[in-house]
Amino acid sequence: MKRGKVYLVGTGPGDPGLITVKGLKCLRKAEVVIYDRLIDDSLLDEAPTGAAKLYAGKGRGHHVMGQKEINLLMVDKAREGKTVVRLKGGDPLVLGRGGEEAEVLGANHIPFEIVPGVSSAYAVPSYARIPVTHRRLASSFTVVTGHEDPGKGESSIDWGRISTGSDTLVFLMGMGSA
Amino acid sequence: MKRGKVYLVGTGPGDPGLITVKGLKCLRKAEVVIYDRLIDDSLLDEAPTGAAKLYAGKGRGHHVMGQKEINLLMVDKAREGKTVVRLKGGDPLVLGRGGEEAEVLGANHIPFEIVPGVSSAYAVPSYARIPVTHRRLASSFTVVTGHEDPGKGESSIDWGRISTGSDTLVFLMGMGSA
Repeated sequence: MKRGKVYLVGTGPGDPGLITVKGLKCLRKAEVVIYDRLIDDSLLDEAPTGAAKLYAGKGRGHHVMGQKEINLLMVDKAREGKTVVRLKGGDPLVLGRGGEEAEVLGANHIPFEIVPGVSSAYAVPSYARIPVTHRRLASSFTVVTGHEDPGKGESSIDWGRISTGSDTLVFLMGMGSA
Repeated sequence: MKRGKVYLVGTGPGDPGLITVKGLKCLRKAEVVIYDRLIDDSLLDEAPTGAAKLYAGKGRGHHVMGQKEINLLMVDKAREGKTVVRLKGGDPLVLGRGGEEAEVLGANHIPFEIVPGVSSAYAVPSYARIPVTHRRLASSFTVVTGHEDPGKGESSIDWGRISTGSDTLVFLMGMGSA
């Protein structure tokens, strides 16, 4: 039997042209696509006609699939020998849950590859022509989640330190929590 | 006369497959390509055969072109009506000098567009399967330049604060300064 594999692919911050060439190549050979809420429809059209396209989007307070179900689905489909593309907005490992998904795949001995994407952390400011760093003005920037895991109990974010620790601060996914 | 335009394109962290689809499209219509040191040769082959390919690389202590010459070159070629692609490693606005280049283009009324790229800040750790954030472990990360502008005088980096301000620290381009 053909061995399955999972590609964790970051699609970038929204504009479908900002997926990487490698990410698009993975998508074009996918047999199963598991995609998040913020993925542009025109990207899904790049997958082969016969591919299964499974929505795993999470809106605030409205989850079609829980994280455990997503993990299980990836593992199951790969074990069936399928080429699985897990499409995530931005970069798979920047403030998404790609790090956990990679852990689960590793723990289950599923071959996987991480295909980085453009993170909205700096790409969204750049649409407004705001650089997050500048040689004369800002030597560092910090990216902070606006969604902490409620299971963590107390916030691990030390706001006093974080607000003064570097030159530029970017908050991702903070709207619902603001 | 045709109006020139400059595209500031990030190529990502080295793997030529990590350029974005949009970045590649710009490159394929370039009349002038001005490229940095870390750009993969196979990317340059994507530019049209007739395009001028100008090396503007900067190694430590060995600059083929100074920043002012690069700025002037972009402005001149755009004024000649050319489609100019300025290829930069990583993302154009993350710890490169793309922010300054965009300022110069704006000040000279040259039409330009910023095409984000995958930043090596998180993509290089991800090749080693190290996520810069993790839902249970790390809610924030800070990216710091290893190359401060010598013209800034004292370092603006407050090491005491930066080392404790967020959960993950990434240093870019620090090798020569380490």
